[in-house]
Amino acid sequence: MIQSRDEVTKIICSTKVAKGIKWSDVAHKLELSKEWTTAACLGQMALTKEQATIVGEVFSLSDEAIAWLQIAPYKGSLPTAVPTDPLIYRWYELVNVYGTTIKELIHEEFGDGIMSAIDFSMDIQREPDPKGDRVNVVLSGKFLPYKTY
Amino acid sequence: MIQSRDEVTKIICSTKVAKGIKWSDVAHKLELSKEWTTAACLGQMALTKEQATIVGEVFSLSDEAIAWLQIAPYKGSLPTAVPTDPLIYRWYELVNVYGTTIKELIHEEFGDGIMSAIDFSMDIQREPDPKGDRVNVVLSGKFLPYKTY
Amino acid sequence: MIQSRDEVTKIICSTKVAKGIKWSDVAHKLELSKEWTTAACLGQMALTKEQATIVGEVFSLSDEAIAWLQIAPYKGSLPTAVPTDPLIYRWYELVNVYGTTIKELIHEEFGDGIMSAIDFSMDIQREPDPKGDRVNVVLSGKFLPYKTY
Amino acid sequence: MIQSRDEVTKIICSTKVAKGIKWSDVAHKLELSKEWTTAACLGQMALTKEQATIVGEVFSLSDEAIAWLQIAPYKGSLPTAVPTDPLIYRWYELVNVYGTTIKELIHEEFGDGIMSAIDFSMDIQREPDPKGDRVNVVLSGKFLPYKTY
Amino acid sequence: MIQSRDEVTKIICSTKVAKGIKWSDVAHKLELSKEWTTAACLGQMALTKEQATIVGEVFSLSDEAIAWLQIAPYKGSLPTAVPTDPLIYRWYELVNVYGTTIKELIHEEFGDGIMSAIDFSMDIQREPDPKGDRVNVVLSGKFLPYKTY
Amino acid sequence: MIQSRDEVTKIICSTKVAKGIKWSDVAHKLELSKEWTTAACLGQMALTKEQATIVGEVFSLSDEAIAWLQIAPYKGSLPTAVPTDPLIYRWYELVNVYGTTIKELIHEEFGDGIMSAIDFSMDIQREPDPKGDRVNVVLSGKFLPYKTY
Amino acid sequence: MIQSRDEVTKIICSTKVAKGIKWSDVAHKLELSKEWTTAACLGQMALTKEQATIVGEVFSLSDEAIAWLQIAPYKGSLPTAVPTDPLIYRWYELVNVYGTTIKELIHEEFGDGIMSAIDFSMDIQREPDPKGDRVNVVLSGKFLPYKTY
Amino acid sequence: MIQSRDEVTKIICSTKVAKGIKWSDVAHKLELSKEWTTAACLGQMALTKEQATIVGEVFSLSDEAIAWLQIAPYKGSLPTAVPTDPLIYRWYELVNVYGTTIKELIHEEFGDGIMSAIDFSMDIQREPDPKGDRVNVVLSGKFLPYKTY
Amino acid sequence: MIQSRDEVTKIICSTKVAKGIKWSDVAHKLELSKEWTTAACLGQMALTKEQATIVGEVFSLSDEAIAWLQIAPYKGSLPTAVPTDPLIYRWYELVNVYGTTIKELIHEEFGDGIMSAIDFSMDIQREPDPKGDRVNVVLSGKFLPYKTY
Amino acid sequence: MIQSRDEVTKIICSTKVAKGIKWSDVAHKLELSKEWTTAACLGQMALTKEQATIVGEVFSLSDEAIAWLQIAPYKGSLPTAVPTDPLIYRWYELVNVYGTTIKELIHEEFGDGIMSAIDFSMDIQREPDPKGDRVNVVLSGKFLPYKTY
Repeated sequence: MIQSRDEVTKIICSTKVAKGIKWSDVAHKLELSKEWTTAACLGQMALTKEQATIVGEVFSLSDEAIAWLQIAPYKGSLPTAVPTDPLIYRWYELVNVYGTTIKELIHEEFGDGIMSAIDFSMDIQREPDPKGDRVNVVLSGKFLPYKTY
Repeated sequence: MIQSRDEVTKIICSTKVAKGIKWSDVAHKLELSKEWTTAACLGQMALTKEQATIVGEVFSLSDEAIAWLQIAPYKGSLPTAVPTDPLIYRWYELVNVYGTTIKELIHEEFGDGIMSAIDFSMDIQREPDPKGDRVNVVLSGKFLPYKTY
Repeated sequence: MIQSRDEVTKIICSTKVAKGIKWSDVAHKLELSKEWTTAACLGQMALTKEQATIVGEVFSLSDEAIAWLQIAPYKGSLPTAVPTDPLIYRWYELVNVYGTTIKELIHEEFGDGIMSAIDFSMDIQREPDPKGDRVNVVLSGKFLPYKTY
Repeated sequence: MIQSRDEVTKIICSTKVAKGIKWSDVAHKLELSKEWTTAACLGQMALTKEQATIVGEVFSLSDEAIAWLQIAPYKGSLPTAVPTDPLIYRWYELVNVYGTTIKELIHEEFGDGIMSAIDFSMDIQREPDPKGDRVNVVLSGKFLPYKTY
Repeated sequence: MIQSRDEVTKIICSTKVAKGIKWSDVAHKLELSKEWTTAACLGQMALTKEQATIVGEVFSLSDEAIAWLQIAPYKGSLPTAVPTDPLIYRWYELVNVYGTTIKELIHEEFGDGIMSAIDFSMDIQREPDPKGDRVNVVLSGKFLPYKTY
Repeated sequence: MIQSRDEVTKIICSTKVAKGIKWSDVAHKLELSKEWTTAACLGQMALTKEQATIVGEVFSLSDEAIAWLQIAPYKGSLPTAVPTDPLIYRWYELVNVYGTTIKELIHEEFGDGIMSAIDFSMDIQREPDPKGDRVNVVLSGKFLPYKTY
Repeated sequence: MIQSRDEVTKIICSTKVAKGIKWSDVAHKLELSKEWTTAACLGQMALTKEQATIVGEVFSLSDEAIAWLQIAPYKGSLPTAVPTDPLIYRWYELVNVYGTTIKELIHEEFGDGIMSAIDFSMDIQREPDPKGDRVNVVLSGKFLPYKTY
Repeated sequence: MIQSRDEVTKIICSTKVAKGIKWSDVAHKLELSKEWTTAACLGQMALTKEQATIVGEVFSLSDEAIAWLQIAPYKGSLPTAVPTDPLIYRWYELVNVYGTTIKELIHEEFGDGIMSAIDFSMDIQREPDPKGDRVNVVLSGKFLPYKTY
Repeated sequence: MIQSRDEVTKIICSTKVAKGIKWSDVAHKLELSKEWTTAACLGQMALTKEQATIVGEVFSLSDEAIAWLQIAPYKGSLPTAVPTDPLIYRWYELVNVYGTTIKELIHEEFGDGIMSAIDFSMDIQREPDPKGDRVNVVLSGKFLPYKTY
Repeated sequence: MIQSRDEVTKIICSTKVAKGIKWSDVAHKLELSKEWTTAACLGQMALTKEQATIVGEVFSLSDEAIAWLQIAPYKGSLPTAVPTDPLIYRWYELVNVYGTTIKELIHEEFGDGIMSAIDFSMDIQREPDPKGDRVNVVLSGKFLPYKTY
């Protein structure tokens, strides 16, 4: 019996390694971005029945696992508050070094409020560069203002 | 006697509030992006003598404070490992929810390595949207591969 | 020179004690709810120029302090991640004991998404009860759905 | 052999996913609120023999599991002190941002004491709104005063 | 200007050392228990105007300090989550070693609920004993049951 | 093969639930207090051979489990440094709120030293009260003075 | 006004450096061990009036500081839970590496109980050794058994 | 397949309980101190092939387990940074209370450097005492000076 | 089914102990440094198909395990933020004691930037010394400057 | 009055910035390595009277500050257990990623023991490289074996 979404994520990951599946191919089948698709397969998003069925076919999942994919998961993909993996740590470092900068500039432009992490999308692209290719990431989040009441 | 860069940052911030200075104006004077400029004024970057002199004029800094601006600072702008401010927390949340997604997709495209947080730039823009304006952020970091030796 | 919003908050609090000011009276002058007013005075909200001027009169603040009130503050009002004060801890306990319950029921009603803590209001009232009066709190937050992209 | 309430909770959750049971239906069978019912099923409340029997039928539990439902559980539903799940984090953020506000206003109205988290009830409702539906939550807790002795 | 109750506590403590005042004498003047009196003087309880005036006379406090004594304080008297002082640690150890025991026995006698830490009193006495005197502590807290709703 | 006392504790707890055994009945068979008995069964005390044999009969333990009961255990019954369970948390709160009070009063009466948590006993009783029954707990610990050397 | 024992410790330490005083000389004047004397001067022990007066003369302390020396201090001399200083860390490492060994051997010899850290003495000596002198430390603590009740 | 030294430690411990083996008897067979022997059996030391064979006979270990005993282990025997077990905590408390004292006295006698925790030995003995037997522990560590370079 | 790289690491480690394989021999077969090879086998580096096949032969790995070796792993080899193992702790201590020194000297020589931990190599050698052999470690990392933008 | 070595370090650092002193020049005057010299000036090493006098002249220190330089300091130069500064973090990352590798290779070459962080030296050099200069660091620490006793 499957007792958590986490178990489904592990099945997906080990099947991916064993079969050599690529996230971009899964995204292509779902007709969605590779970013949302990967997050969903890694247990961070709930899927519709149709999406879950497609993912289930790709990774040969049981009906029970497909049912779990449709449940809103307990989110958070990192095992420690400060991530130890160098790639992910660089992002944590960006938040730590540039956090107050981001805060100041958004407030200067928009006033008090936040950039939503829910009404949000992300796009990761390779930018060829003769001095070494670059990773370009575009983040887009709706601005939500604090209001008086 | 000024004993740390942190003191200079506090002087800059209180002068900014008292005089109503905008980061984008400081950036304009430095002829640099508003992102780098703000990070530098908030104590995360070392400035050249010329840059420090300009910033010193804007914020009426003493020679000693201007000297501190040219020293590579002890970086990190947040008082706690998990930030409490809602705007900055949303970014921490992105790292937590999307961290493994970013890792997977960069590895799928580039192989093992990282996206540099040093050879890096950031651009924050307002994107008008009838359903509510959006914050668009473009991050660009050089890919650094792990190599055998 | 005032170096942070936190200093303004301390001035407000000590003046409040010395003069015996009530939050509800401040709210009345601002023509806003006592909940938003108190949060603003305790350093969690940015005020408009008009609001800041009124608060400045009530608490005899300097122009510099009034300027700080109009800056979006670094939010978070608690000195420790798990609060030690019994009244505030009870709220932390509610999140700890009922957290997964709230999550399940909001997802059951709305699907995957969150209840906003930004587009949000709170109303605290005394409810007379012969067995001992009760504290009634109404929280209202906009539902923000996760979407595919 | 079942060694903790936590195991019963996992069985309930996986059965719920597999059978597509709704919390509000369970609450209906118990003739209790959906909030208490969900908290109880998620391992935060002790049930009476009658309640446990009904829940046992709904989720096809063994006699041993039904016995565990009647034991006062070790409460606390979150895996980390600061929750990583965005929905639950928003509640933690409310405590962090509004914690001192809540404290001030309850003390202003009632004097020193707390709002009970034991003699307590919660009601979560959807409020239709043309700008986007809202989550309305009513919390009601008895005020308990500190007394001299 | 006094900016927090904590400052008043420090004034009380240093005056106590300088003048050689005893807590039991303060309690005698307040006609209250030495336990409540000490907790109040150490910044954990709010005092009435009359109580604050008496304490103010004993410790030669300013009017401003006396005003602070009447405000419900931010409670919690320990600088670290796990106390380092050996006397206080022994109490933390009791909670750690006997915590589940206390929980089991209260539940066995009363059912699910808690022993209140608000509607609560404590009495500390010396018990002469030829093998070495003992510290006897009587704790009395109202039982608060969890109820269904 | 049983690899830790913790496994024995889990067997005792699950047998207790399955058979509906009461701690006070176990204590009666051991002719010891219910407090010590419960702590011992929950893995916090070492038992003599005779005591372990009686407990073994009550909970149908194997010889190996009975042998483990006679080993001095690695003590500490709580999964986190700050307990999440509301009942146990109230005790942690008492240490946090009253910790310095207890320290001051024991020092005022006895001088520098501690109240032993080893040469210690505890007695938990229900005190009937028309306003709601109370939990009365008597703690008795030998005073151990610090000495010069 | 001196507000804590910690301030007295800092005065003692800075006077010691300025005047080049040795702990062993202070101990000689007190006619006590250098270990107890140093711990007392570093704020970990309460002194009698006579002892405090002698220490006050050695370090030119004010009457107020001498009064503070006679108060039982809030003990614990380290700024972090895991010490960063290499000399002190080696002792933490001994507890970490040998902790279970010490536990096993004391229990094998004495049964369940502890070695007291209160009824305790320590003696640190240099042991000449041709391969490099050694630090020899003798710790002596009374065994305190757990008893049934 | 045995995957860590930790598994071997658990086998040794459970066999010790089941067979009633004493550490001092194992030490006698190894012709080494009971302190080193216990630490080695508890997974803190690497054994030679001869030593591992003897330990393997005493505890009926497999060849694979005996091979693991000869590998330098990942050391550290405690599950938490601050130990919860009262006996081991007393040692942590000694480091916390006397840490700066030990540091001062070693520096006063030897200059800057440390007492080695590697070139180190420990001897635990029972000292009979009419007021209650004492645990005497002798620690001996080589002094290692910091040098300029 | 193998669910993580960590499982492969455990298989490699237990096979290494059982068969008595040396890391330097594995490195020799891979024609790479022993440092990179060990890090890769311990789950910190991704291997090419050819490298993974060779490692698979040495440690008798399944095809699935060999596939896992080619995936960029979640890096970080330590179970706690501050390592408890004395050998590894000494390295953490070096970072703690010399961290600001390293920072100052690299900035003095190169300006603001970092020494890469990705474009990096390490070489560990034994240096014979009559006073006791030494461990010599050469670290080489590319300097990456912060730039304005 | 100077109350800690930390104050001396801050005076040295602010004088260094104000006067534009270089660590390598200080080292030249002391006729010692720039690594040891910087660590000593940053409060991690004790200086001899002669060394302290020279450093005192360079940084215009008072006699009291020069006296503090000769005291063995409480070592540890980082404000948090996991450093936030990117340059220093890269070193923490090396310990985290390569920690078990270093451990394995030192044990393979030397047996069980550690590389000393006391009998230790470090040399940091710039290595010109057409693809970008490199930071080369040579660490040399005496091997200290664990021995039986």
